[in-house]
Amino acid sequence: MCPVACSLDVIGDRWTLLVIRDLFAGKRRYGEFLTSSERIPTNILAERLRRLESAGLVGSTQYSEHPPRYEYELTERGRGLAPVLDAVATWGLEQFPGTKRLARTG
Amino acid sequence: MCPVACSLDVIGDRWTLLVIRDLFAGKRRYGEFLTSSERIPTNILAERLRRLESAGLVGSTQYSEHPPRYEYELTERGRGLAPVLDAVATWGLEQFPGTKRLARTG
Repeated sequence: MCPVACSLDVIGDRWTLLVIRDLFAGKRRYGEFLTSSERIPTNILAERLRRLESAGLVGSTQYSEHPPRYEYELTERGRGLAPVLDAVATWGLEQFPGTKRLARTG
Repeated sequence: MCPVACSLDVIGDRWTLLVIRDLFAGKRRYGEFLTSSERIPTNILAERLRRLESAGLVGSTQYSEHPPRYEYELTERGRGLAPVLDAVATWGLEQFPGTKRLARTG
C-alpha cells in the first residue's frame, strides 16, 4: 500500500485542504471558516469537518449549549500536515505571482 | 490571493496527485498509469492528463502514429511538486503503518 494514496483518501480534496489551511491560520469557529475568500458552502464545510474529526485530524470543543456550538482545532495528527501545507504554499508562491501566504497563528 | 488555494485549483484532487506520483515514479505511457493499484478509470486518466498538460505541469511526445500514442512526462513546473509529494508520502508513512513508498525512477 502506498502512503501517498492512503493520505489522499483523507486529504486529497481541495475543500478539505483549505479547511486545514484555515485551522493552521488559527480559525476555530464555523462562521470563521465561512468567511474565507474561497466561500466554502456551509454543507460542504459541515461535511468536511465531520470527516476530518472522524479521521482524527481535528478535535472539537463545545463552547455554547443553546444553541450547541463547537470550536475546532487540529489534533497532533492534523498538525503533522504542516510540511504538506508548507510545500503546497511554497510551490504556489513560485507558480502564481501575486499570491501571498496567510499568516499562521495556530 | 492565497498560494494554497491557487495551487489546489490545479492539484487539489486525489486522482491528479496520484497521476503526478506515477509520473515521478517513471510511468510514461497511458497503459502504465492504468495498471497502478488504485485502478484509475480510463476516462478520468485522459481528463486529468489533459488538464495537467494545459496547466503546464505535463508535456507529451507522440511515439506512435497509427494508432496515435503519446508519452507523458513532468515539465520543470511539474517537477517542482516533488516537495509536495514527499511531504504527503512522509505524513502517510507515519500515519498508515504498513505503507511503503514507491521507488522514484523519473
